[in-house]
Parts: sequence; C-alpha cells; structure tokens
Amino acid sequence: MFKAIVSADTLGDALDSVSVLVDECKIRLEEEGLTIRAVDPANVGMVDLTLDAAAFESYETDGGVIGVNLSRLEEFVGMADAGQLVQLELDEETRKLHIQIEGLEGTLALIDPDSIRQEPDLPDLDLPANVVVEGADIARAVKAADMVSDHIALGVDADEELFYVDAEGDTDDVHLELTREDLIDLTAGDARSLFSLDYLQDMNKAIPSDAEVTMELGEEFPVKLHFDIAEGNGQVTYMLAPRIQSD
Amino acid sequence: MFKAIVSADTLGDALDSVSVLVDECKIRLEEEGLTIRAVDPANVGMVDLTLDAAAFESYETDGGVIGVNLSRLEEFVGMADAGQLVQLELDEETRKLHIQIEGLEGTLALIDPDSIRQEPDLPDLDLPANVVVEGADIARAVKAADMVSDHIALGVDADEELFYVDAEGDTDDVHLELTREDLIDLTAGDARSLFSLDYLQDMNKAIPSDAEVTMELGEEFPVKLHFDIAEGNGQVTYMLAPRIQSD
Amino acid sequence: MFKAIVSADTLGDALDSVSVLVDECKIRLEEEGLTIRAVDPANVGMVDLTLDAAAFESYETDGGVIGVNLSRLEEFVGMADAGQLVQLELDEETRKLHIQIEGLEGTLALIDPDSIRQEPDLPDLDLPANVVVEGADIARAVKAADMVSDHIALGVDADEELFYVDAEGDTDDVHLELTREDLIDLTAGDARSLFSLDYLQDMNKAIPSDAEVTMELGEEFPVKLHFDIAEGNGQVTYMLAPRIQSD
Repeated sequence: MFKAIVSADTLGDALDSVSVLVDECKIRLEEEGLTIRAVDPANVGMVDLTLDAAAFESYETDGGVIGVNLSRLEEFVGMADAGQLVQLELDEETRKLHIQIEGLEGTLALIDPDSIRQEPDLPDLDLPANVVVEGADIARAVKAADMVSDHIALGVDADEELFYVDAEGDTDDVHLELTREDLIDLTAGDARSLFSLDYLQDMNKAIPSDAEVTMELGEEFPVKLHFDIAEGNGQVTYMLAPRIQSD
Repeated sequence: MFKAIVSADTLGDALDSVSVLVDECKIRLEEEGLTIRAVDPANVGMVDLTLDAAAFESYETDGGVIGVNLSRLEEFVGMADAGQLVQLELDEETRKLHIQIEGLEGTLALIDPDSIRQEPDLPDLDLPANVVVEGADIARAVKAADMVSDHIALGVDADEELFYVDAEGDTDDVHLELTREDLIDLTAGDARSLFSLDYLQDMNKAIPSDAEVTMELGEEFPVKLHFDIAEGNGQVTYMLAPRIQSD
Repeated sequence: MFKAIVSADTLGDALDSVSVLVDECKIRLEEEGLTIRAVDPANVGMVDLTLDAAAFESYETDGGVIGVNLSRLEEFVGMADAGQLVQLELDEETRKLHIQIEGLEGTLALIDPDSIRQEPDLPDLDLPANVVVEGADIARAVKAADMVSDHIALGVDADEELFYVDAEGDTDDVHLELTREDLIDLTAGDARSLFSLDYLQDMNKAIPSDAEVTMELGEEFPVKLHFDIAEGNGQVTYMLAPRIQSD
C-alpha cells in the first residue's frame, strides 16, 4: 500500500536529482519516507536520495519497492503548475501508479524492480577535507572548467586553508580558489582528486544555486556532495569516483 | 478593389488560426469583412474564419477573392511591433498585395485562387453536447494526452454532467474531467469521439489561453470548436473529423 | 608588457564587433589603447576597432601585437557576471594571456600573429552621402530585406532628402524610407549600392539597437558604418564592399 500527496515542486526536485544519472530506478517505500539509490551504467556516479514523510502533505505506506521510468514520471509531475499538489497511489494488483493533479488523472505502468540495475552501496569514507559551498559556486567552477577540459580537479590546500578547482586543457587552463571567507565552512585537510567533468555537470543540474553543498574530499578519492531539498525534509548525496590523474 | 488598415496583432491572430492547418488559402473580400475557409490536405481539419470590417481601422472593398501564401504574409505582418498598424492594398493589375507598416513598404505576390485547394463546406451538424471551456483547459488536455498517446477522446457524460478527455497509450493513460463548475457552460448530452492529437495540437496553437471556446460534440462525430478573436469582431470555427475508435 | 583591467561588458562588446567577421585576429597594444583591424576571408567585410585606454579601469602596455582566438577569449570573458571586472595580463615568456575574474584565473594560449591573415587597410573614401540612424532602424531594414532577398540596396535620394533600403526577391519586394525627420542626421548626396545581406546581418548583431550609427554611402561604392562603444571610449568602423548590381 502506498498513498501520498506532495507538492509537484518537491517531488520534481527529488526525481530530478536521480534522473541526471539514471533513466530507471527503484523507489523504496518506507515508513519514514521514500529512498532511492542508484548508480550510472558506468559505475562512476552514484546518488542516494531520501524524501522524508514530512516532505509530503500526507504519506502512507506499509513498505515495498517499485520500479519507475523516471522521465515518464517526471512528465506526469510536470503537468502540475507551480504549487499544485500531486496525489500518488499504488495499485497493487495492476502494478500501476495512479497520479492525480487537479482533475487530471493518469496511470503510469511500473517496471519490475528485478529488471532494474542493483542499488549501489555508498561506502562510508573517512575523507580528510570538508568544504561547504554555495551551489552557485559549483556551477561557476563547472562552467569554467568546461571551457578548457573534459576533466576537473577538486582540491583543498590545508596550509593555505582554501578550496580550489583546476582544469587543464591542451593549451588553456583555469583555476578557481575559494578561501575560508568565500566558503560557508571549511575543515581543511590535504585533498586533490581528478573527476570526469560530464558527471559533475549532470549533478550540478540538480543542485539549486542557493543550496549549501557539503563536499567531502580526499587524495585520489571519490568526492561526496550532500545537499538538502524539500526545505530540509529531503537529502541528496552524490558520490563521484575519481579518474586516474592523467599526468 | 481592396484597401484596409488593421492592427498587426489582429491580422496576425486571424492568419495564425488558418496557417496551423494550411500553407495557402483563398481570402474572400466581402463588404462585411474577410472570410477564409480551408481544409487540410488530408481532409481531416477545417477552419472557417471571419474577420468583420469592424475589426479594421478602415476597410474598403468591392469584393473579390485573393490567394495568399500564409507564411509569407505572416512574415510581413510580423515586421510590425505590437500595436502598430498594417496597411493593405490590392493592386488589381499586378495581382500583388501592397503592405505598409510605419515607413516600410512591401509587395507580396498573390497566388492564383484557382490553384488553391477548394474551400470546404462546414456541415451544419446538430450535435447533442455543447461545452464552453477556457482555452487553457484545452491546452492542458492536449499536453496531458500527448504524454501517453497520439489520440485523444473528447466526451460528455450526460448523467454525471461532465466533460472528459481520455488518452490511452500502450502502458499509460490519462483522464481529465471538468464538471459543470469547472466549465463556463455545459449543455449535457451523451458524446464521445476519438481524434488525432496532432490536429488538436495545431488548432490549440491558435486558441488564446483566455478564450472562451465552445465545443460541439457527438457520438463518433466531428467536434466543432468556436472562439472569438479581434475582441469579438472575428470568429474562428474549427471542425475536426473523428477517427474510428481503435478498440 | 600588457596589463589591464576592464569591465566584462566593455571588453565583450568590443570583441563581439570583430568576431562577427573573423575567428582570429591580431590585437595591437598601443599606449592610447587597443586596436583591431580585420577582414573576412572573402575580403568583403572589414572592421576597424579602437578601444581607448580610457575605456579601461587601468591600462598599461609598452606596445606589441598579440594574436587571439576570439571565441576562446569571448568564452573566458563570458564567465564574468554583468558589471564584473576582467583582469588581463600578458606573460611574455609563455606567450599566454592570464585572465582573472573574481577569484577565477585562466590562461589562454595566444596565436602567432604571423599566422593570422594580414590586417586590411580601410581606404579613406570621400563618399557623397552621410546618414546617421539608430541601430534599431538598421536591424529593422535587415530583417525586412531578409524576408524577400539575399541582397539589400542602401541608398540616398538627394532631391527627396531621404535614406532608403530596397530588397527585391523573385516575386516579392520591400522598401523602407527614412526621411530627414526619421533620421538623426542627413548629409544628402545621391547614393545607391547593393550589398550582400549576410554581411550586414552579421554586422548588425554587434550594433546596439540604441547606437547612433553613421553610414557613409556612394554610388556603387562600399558603405562605411561607424558607431561608438564603451560610452564613447571605443569606436567601431565596418566597411562592406558592394556587389555588382544584378539588373
């Protein structure tokens, strides 16, 4: 059993944070809320989303797992105007999801969860550096790096107490530094890892420009990005595997 | 003889309502105003437009028929800024249309009306159901149906006193209901017909979202849509032939 | 040595006026400011830009010539928000340009100036007619001509004291007249020349709609267009060669 009412904006933001990485996913229906964990086909980018019951106008379930085509579901949710509510109800028999938005009713066929890629474990890494930045700063870094390269290095200089971004192309390069004053918070520790820019660009699409994004960084380690959605009633964690340094 | 001055917005709206169905049309120049009737090449969608002399700043003609390439004429009219006036004058000798917009003069070659597809008769159907909706509701129904199917069913449930829209795809479907309270007006009578979504999407492009649209509906019958343009000094009627129910 | 600080908007406008014609150019660094002269590969359109030292927040150079890829440099400048400053510094040893924008540092490889097409001489023509129009009028003329033709005739009727634009297509044509009252200034003299519309469209992209554009015109002669940028601290001159009259 699953029956819930949620604002279209909240549900849309939550789904967007997953659909930047995968087309289909399992949604775990738990008493405390929804959770989605997914990894892209290349095993490079992972997402872990929780949308707490408190993010919903109403939320009832006795548990279960459903498989969804994210773009289809997002299209349905996109039929709502800003501020409109979306009512979701699982039909256990037909394995379809009923969706209602202000007089509009839709039925969305679900996908057999067993046919969807297995959910990843997001390892608990003890990373030495911790940086809290505005989403807009990540957007700027990604845009700058994209001018010159397909890769982006994220690092922390523990001595100088700064977070930096490096991108080196064949002839041109860019470098961005955010000092302790430019950052919302910084736990300094030496860190530098190289990442595929494509993935960070995709993740960036789902990060609100005014979000506080916590980045955990290490030396040649994955980066973890955490931010809240749904006014704090939802959490997104991205993990991105590093690339081997090319030099 | 034909000589007229009209606001670019009014003329543009009138032409748009025809150009969503056909590329070329005959314009009948009558004392009371312009009329255009046209049917798309597949004989599925028809339009009947009248633009009364009162919609013009000035309007003079002794009758006649001219053939125009709609996109060319729309391009000329599109040169005007919002609120600017367009002056039209037929040169009988050269069979060209002179167009003037604030210092800009253009000459548009007309098309031999005999080379243009014959004008259709829009049959006078006595349809049992009559629904008056806002243009925005048609837009929403069309958008929702497009998520799941190429067809759209429009119907009226006489007992429940409601207008409904159904679209059924291979796996997903949508259903929209507007009760008497959601509608501007309703003359209930059982009706349900299936239509090609493409045509309704095209017609919808010419329907202002705040227009009052009167829909006449029957059982497996064409639908007629009427709405005003030019602040009531122009009328558009669309007629769309039904598809055979696929089930 | 070259070191300068300039608003991103000013630098962007200056570069745009050149990049509509060529991909690469030489920038002459002079004590009084920057100058760029370039001609398109077909030798039809030329640009002469000066950006005075007064257009910069700070400007220091001991002279020299650098070669740049305009789209790369424009991308870097485009990283700045409106109103932000761009700091430029030439690294003589590496022949790279260092660019700084609010914490973002970039390095742009320069191009060997000898590998760039030679700078043209913009001949000093003594043209009989001189017209000063708003940029918006040029935009309108170009848009209107584009509806019917690939060519555009610009002319002055000395007797009537008016500037006119003609475009003739196979079946349709447009004609635009601006009288002395519609113009900012007019020095009448008979003039009429035919131009390729493509070039004028490209030049028009760099002309602000509220710019005062001085046009020098003759009979079957090139047209020269002059306008200011950087609040009068920069000047752009375009010269466009005429086409042989097709009739």
